[in-house]
Amino acid sequence: MTARNITRTIIVETPSRPGNLGKVTTAIGQAGGDIGDITTIKIGPLSTVRDITVQFESDEQLEVVVRAIEALGGGIYVHGVSDEVLRAHEGGKIRMVSKLDIRSLADLRRVYTPGVADVCRVIQEEPEKARYYTSIGNTVAIVTDGTAILGLGNIGPLAGMPVMEGKAALFDRFAGISGIPILLDTSDPDEVVRTIKNISHSFGGILLEDIGSPHCFEIEERLKRELPIPVMHDDQHGTAVVTLAAAISACRATGIELRDAVVGQIGLGAAGLAICRMFMAYGVKEMSGVDRQAAALDRLRQYGGTPLGSLEELMEKCDIVVATTGVPGLIKPEMIRQGQVILALSNPKPEIDPVCALKAGAAFAADGRSVNNVLGFPGIFRGVLNAGARDITHEMLVAAAQAIADCTSEGELAPHPLDPEVHRRVARAVEQVASQKN
Amino acid sequence: MTARNITRTIIVETPSRPGNLGKVTTAIGQAGGDIGDITTIKIGPLSTVRDITVQFESDEQLEVVVRAIEALGGGIYVHGVSDEVLRAHEGGKIRMVSKLDIRSLADLRRVYTPGVADVCRVIQEEPEKARYYTSIGNTVAIVTDGTAILGLGNIGPLAGMPVMEGKAALFDRFAGISGIPILLDTSDPDEVVRTIKNISHSFGGILLEDIGSPHCFEIEERLKRELPIPVMHDDQHGTAVVTLAAAISACRATGIELRDAVVGQIGLGAAGLAICRMFMAYGVKEMSGVDRQAAALDRLRQYGGTPLGSLEELMEKCDIVVATTGVPGLIKPEMIRQGQVILALSNPKPEIDPVCALKAGAAFAADGRSVNNVLGFPGIFRGVLNAGARDITHEMLVAAAQAIADCTSEGELAPHPLDPEVHRRVARAVEQVASQKN
Repeated sequence: MTARNITRTIIVETPSRPGNLGKVTTAIGQAGGDIGDITTIKIGPLSTVRDITVQFESDEQLEVVVRAIEALGGGIYVHGVSDEVLRAHEGGKIRMVSKLDIRSLADLRRVYTPGVADVCRVIQEEPEKARYYTSIGNTVAIVTDGTAILGLGNIGPLAGMPVMEGKAALFDRFAGISGIPILLDTSDPDEVVRTIKNISHSFGGILLEDIGSPHCFEIEERLKRELPIPVMHDDQHGTAVVTLAAAISACRATGIELRDAVVGQIGLGAAGLAICRMFMAYGVKEMSGVDRQAAALDRLRQYGGTPLGSLEELMEKCDIVVATTGVPGLIKPEMIRQGQVILALSNPKPEIDPVCALKAGAAFAADGRSVNNVLGFPGIFRGVLNAGARDITHEMLVAAAQAIADCTSEGELAPHPLDPEVHRRVARAVEQVASQKN
Repeated sequence: MTARNITRTIIVETPSRPGNLGKVTTAIGQAGGDIGDITTIKIGPLSTVRDITVQFESDEQLEVVVRAIEALGGGIYVHGVSDEVLRAHEGGKIRMVSKLDIRSLADLRRVYTPGVADVCRVIQEEPEKARYYTSIGNTVAIVTDGTAILGLGNIGPLAGMPVMEGKAALFDRFAGISGIPILLDTSDPDEVVRTIKNISHSFGGILLEDIGSPHCFEIEERLKRELPIPVMHDDQHGTAVVTLAAAISACRATGIELRDAVVGQIGLGAAGLAICRMFMAYGVKEMSGVDRQAAALDRLRQYGGTPLGSLEELMEKCDIVVATTGVPGLIKPEMIRQGQVILALSNPKPEIDPVCALKAGAAFAADGRSVNNVLGFPGIFRGVLNAGARDITHEMLVAAAQAIADCTSEGELAPHPLDPEVHRRVARAVEQVASQKN
């Protein structure tokens, strides 16, 4: 018996006539594929779409099978071949549901016309009642222009949709928030701000996501200034919150007092600059940074940090070093100072391997695998929405970072992202600060 | 014992300290309210919000109780008093949910980073794959500018939100579609078109809703022309579909051949004009209309209909009369011709009472109570999304109307809106026409 260790799901459309599925399964079998489950995705008047799970011996065999199906013709099409990850994404990861049953005409008259008119009138008279009688106060737009999707770069908003759906799924699971992906067909700051403002009544908050630098700075600053609802760019401040939390935990493990330490940030892109601002908001007095771009150094100076001339100078000067450059191996072992804390956060490959850094004399070293944004944004938005806050402040974000650090076990850099207690404590800490402001 | 026939739910916020709920319940009891269930809506670090259900003898007593709670002070607030309809709307009627469980780090890595990057890359290479691996192809934006909410008029988009959420709830229940309310803070056609185009990648279709006349015409026409996804203004074409279905059923009951009949439309607003266009698309050869506004008559002429000089002339000339004027009692019994079909559809009060019209000689008469848009839009969008259609055509809409009429029992004007078979048949009929086009 041959080993069949590749499992794929083939999405096949056939005309809705008897015999077509037989043709397809015969073709698969003759080409050497071993058929497992067959699931009907859609039955239409003209055609049917099915997921056919097939096991193969090799990628070559998979190709032979797909070509054999395509060769059948007569309206039979292969729409895609999914592995386990793609399969999980079929049909998308999120959906909008009714919270109420609609089982009788009385239900229909309550949730739709004519009953709904009473609710409209109540909100017309007192707009703040929308907070109680609509879902707006529990809804956050997840907005991207597709210019900086994960580490993939400017792949466009459509290709970024799976990330936005992922964020919406996490919002639901960890904070009970309705996340609405909004894909922007423009990156021009004026146009983005204008578009978001035009639709902003629909939402209780705005999460900016995977928007590139430097236009992300202007977009976030203007939206924060011009909208009366909380706005946060996750790649800046969400990342900064979990990084500060990691640094607090690392300092606890090494007995360093973070606020009195000299901290250095390598890479002053959207995330790096926000990390500097977050450390300073936490109370770090000496915050330095390096970047290859002069504009990035200027931005750091504007926010009160100290630009340094070189990576070597930073490594020489700082007790705690954070790197978010995306350049694997940038930090050489010989640069490491005795007793330093090194957080080399670039994914999937860090600026220096933690084992290597420890061997070179670091007191604590970690990469970015456990520093995950999902620890921050769900609870942060739950907190500000609960409080009815109009803004997200650094004070709230520092409270979120402290809550994450408080949930982190001794010797760990971050808590488990699926622990519901983390998200509850982040939400509570943020709400507490936000409510005192109100 | 006194009759307590008024039940209300009072939304009360109290500081999160022991004793506060006691103060509130004591105040309610002393003011004569009879307390039922108490439900906690939100526990925050500083305050707790509860739903307290109370029975009263009279509205006056309700007021006394609310004043008594408000008089307590010390951070105790009444945020609202809900009746049964308002109660059903608390927290909104819809929410976005994850379709997948996230119970392990493996799940997290599949739906979020790093697994999601594979899905992004697949879509980047073949954008049409977004149809299979995202929710976009099953998502419809429900867009309003709040200028014509139900019969309430220009009450603004925020006050219109309960209607948009109602549509989203119906989309979910009757067609499994994710409906996303989008509240527009502008009514300017240029700005509306620009905004919707900027966010249109997020959706598989656009349902325009409760947008006033005449700007609704330009907005719909431009969006249909400029976007590659189906766009429909429900107040125009959704209404026209169910009206045509009602007319088909009425003609079947009276033995009239609709296509050969002389049909008259009273009132050429957004709905009325769309009804004329739908009848003509169905094959009605003689389509007349009246309206007080010359611009409305011009629009009818543009689309191939015949403007008439007066209501009396229309009533004299037409075999079938449809009225959507919002003017109760506009049609006098003496205007009714022997054997006429009268559909006086204005809600809640028709242009002529059906009993009165029948007594005056009409062969068939009905008001608008059973002519409900919910019969149309869920199945229409299910059909076009299934087919991957780029547009909604009159041919598809006529097929939808015919499907609704085919589900209507003898002697009825429309089928039961909660019958899932109606929505399935509408979807199938629309998909069939749309697929033939592709």
